Amino acid sequence: MVSWAQMDIDSPVIQTSVQKLSKGNTASSLDDWIAVEAPLEVWMGGKPATVLMRTPGQDEELVRGFLFDEGIITSMSDILSIGKPENADQQVGGSTIVVDLAASASLPSEERMFYSNSSCGVCGKQTIDSIEVRGNVSESRLTVRRAVLGTLPDRLRNAQTTFAKTGGVHASGLFTRDGELIVVREDVGRHNALDKLNGWALGEGRIPLNDYILVLSGRISYELVQKAVAASIPMIAAVGAPSSLAVEIAGKFNLTLVGFLRPDTMNVYAHPERVIE
Amino acid sequence: MVSWAQMDIDSPVIQTSVQKLSKGNTASSLDDWIAVEAPLEVWMGGKPATVLMRTPGQDEELVRGFLFDEGIITSMSDILSIGKPENADQQVGGSTIVVDLAASASLPSEERMFYSNSSCGVCGKQTIDSIEVRGNVSESRLTVRRAVLGTLPDRLRNAQTTFAKTGGVHASGLFTRDGELIVVREDVGRHNALDKLNGWALGEGRIPLNDYILVLSGRISYELVQKAVAASIPMIAAVGAPSSLAVEIAGKFNLTLVGFLRPDTMNVYAHPERVIE
Repeated sequence: MVSWAQMDIDSPVIQTSVQKLSKGNTASSLDDWIAVEAPLEVWMGGKPATVLMRTPGQDEELVRGFLFDEGIITSMSDILSIGKPENADQQVGGSTIVVDLAASASLPSEERMFYSNSSCGVCGKQTIDSIEVRGNVSESRLTVRRAVLGTLPDRLRNAQTTFAKTGGVHASGLFTRDGELIVVREDVGRHNALDKLNGWALGEGRIPLNDYILVLSGRISYELVQKAVAASIPMIAAVGAPSSLAVEIAGKFNLTLVGFLRPDTMNVYAHPERVIE
Repeated sequence: MVSWAQMDIDSPVIQTSVQKLSKGNTASSLDDWIAVEAPLEVWMGGKPATVLMRTPGQDEELVRGFLFDEGIITSMSDILSIGKPENADQQVGGSTIVVDLAASASLPSEERMFYSNSSCGVCGKQTIDSIEVRGNVSESRLTVRRAVLGTLPDRLRNAQTTFAKTGGVHASGLFTRDGELIVVREDVGRHNALDKLNGWALGEGRIPLNDYILVLSGRISYELVQKAVAASIPMIAAVGAPSSLAVEIAGKFNLTLVGFLRPDTMNVYAHPERVIE
C-alpha cells in the first residue's frame, strides 16, 4: 500500500533522477522532468464521491468539466461552491475538491453515483444500458478549410508546455475555423484534458461550442466523442486513429471526425461536408 | 442514446468508409480498417457487475486478467466457470461474459464492488484510501542487456497485427531476457491489453512472471505499473514517458522502469541495476 500523504502537490511537472543509457556511452545520471499523475478526491453532498487520477493544476476546471460531461450539472448555476476543503478532516491525504451542488443539479442517487463516477466515461458503469451518449445532434453550420486543419497539430504542439517538458501528457485544444487557438489543456489522462477544456468553457460561458474545432493529440475513443457531444462541439480533428465506436457516435450526432491529421493529408471518418477546399 | 444491439461482434477490426484528403489531390473515398471498441458486460454472482470497453477477441483472457489484477481472484481455481451466457436474458445487447467464482475468490461486497470494478484501476473508486497497490516487492534477479532492450520495440511492433491494420491500438508484450517474444496482446485501451496478457499468463500457469520483461507501446501510468506488480513482473520497458506515480510505485516495489525506449537510447527511472551492458 502506497501512502498518498506526499501527493498534495499543485505542479503539473516534477523532477526525477534518470539514468540515460546510450550505445557506446557510459551511463549518465541527471534530473529530468516527468508529468505528475496524482489522485484528486471529489466530495459531493458532504462525502467522498469519486477519485480522479489527474495531472494537477486546473483541478476546479477538471471537476466542473467532469460533472458537466457526466450530465450532473448543465450550467455554472448548478454549482453553489467549489474549492479546496476548509475542514482538515476532508484532507486525509492527497488533494481534495469539495463541491456543493444546487438543487437544480442532477446529483445521482446513491446507487447511480457509483455507476457513473468514472473519469473515463465507461469504467465503473455496471451495465451496458447505463452507458449512453448524452447530448444533441449537432446543427452547427461550421466549415473549415482543409489547409487550415493541416496547420492545427503544429499549433497545438507549440502550445503544449507540459508535453514539451515531459513528453508524457496528452492535450485537447479548441480552435476557431481560422486556426486560432482558444484554449489548450493537458493531462496524463486524455479524458481529463478534455474535461478541463469543457470545464474552462463552461466557466467562460462559451458552451455550446458550436463554432469550434476540437484538436486531440492522440487517438479518438468513445469517451472523447461523448464529451465533445456534451459540449456541442461539431468537429474533432486528431493526430491519431479513431475507434469504431467513435466513428459510429460521430455519425449519429452529426459530428465531423478527422483522424491521422497531418499537414498535407488526413482521413475523414464522419460528416466530411464540414471540411472544404 | 446509442443502441448497442449491433455490438456483439468478435472481430478486433472492422472496415469503415473513409474520405482521404490530401494537398492538391481531389478527395478519394475508400474502405479502411479501424480498431473495434465495444462494451463487454461482465456478470458475477448472477448479475451484471461491470462493463469493460474493449477491443473484442480475447474476452475471457481479458476478464480473467481484470479479476486477477483487481485482486478478486488469485488463481485459476478461483473461477468455476467463465464464458458466454447460456441464458438469452443475459444478452441484452452487446457482448456478455458470465463468471462463476469459487468460494475462495475475494468477490467484493456489494458496496466494494462498485469501488473497484474499474477497467483502468482508478475510475469508479470513491476515496483515495481505496486506491492501493496490491502485490509484493519484487525479488527477481533478472538482468537484461541494454542492447537486447533496444531491439524490443521493433519486435513488439512486428507482432502487432491489429496496429498494423488500424494504427489505433496499444500493445503489451512479454519478452525473455534474450529478447524472445512470449506473448503480445492489443487493445484500444492499454490497460485492457495488459489485463489480457496477465489473463493469458494466469491461464498458462506462468504467474509469477519473475523472469520476464513487459514492453509497452505507449506511456507508463499508475494503473499499468499496478497490473505489472500484481503479476510479479520485475521490469517494464516502454516506448513512451512514465508518470510521476509510475516512477514512485516502481521504486517502492523494486520494479525496473525504462521509458523512451529506442534502439540506441533509453531512460531508466527506477532500479537501473537490472539493465547491464
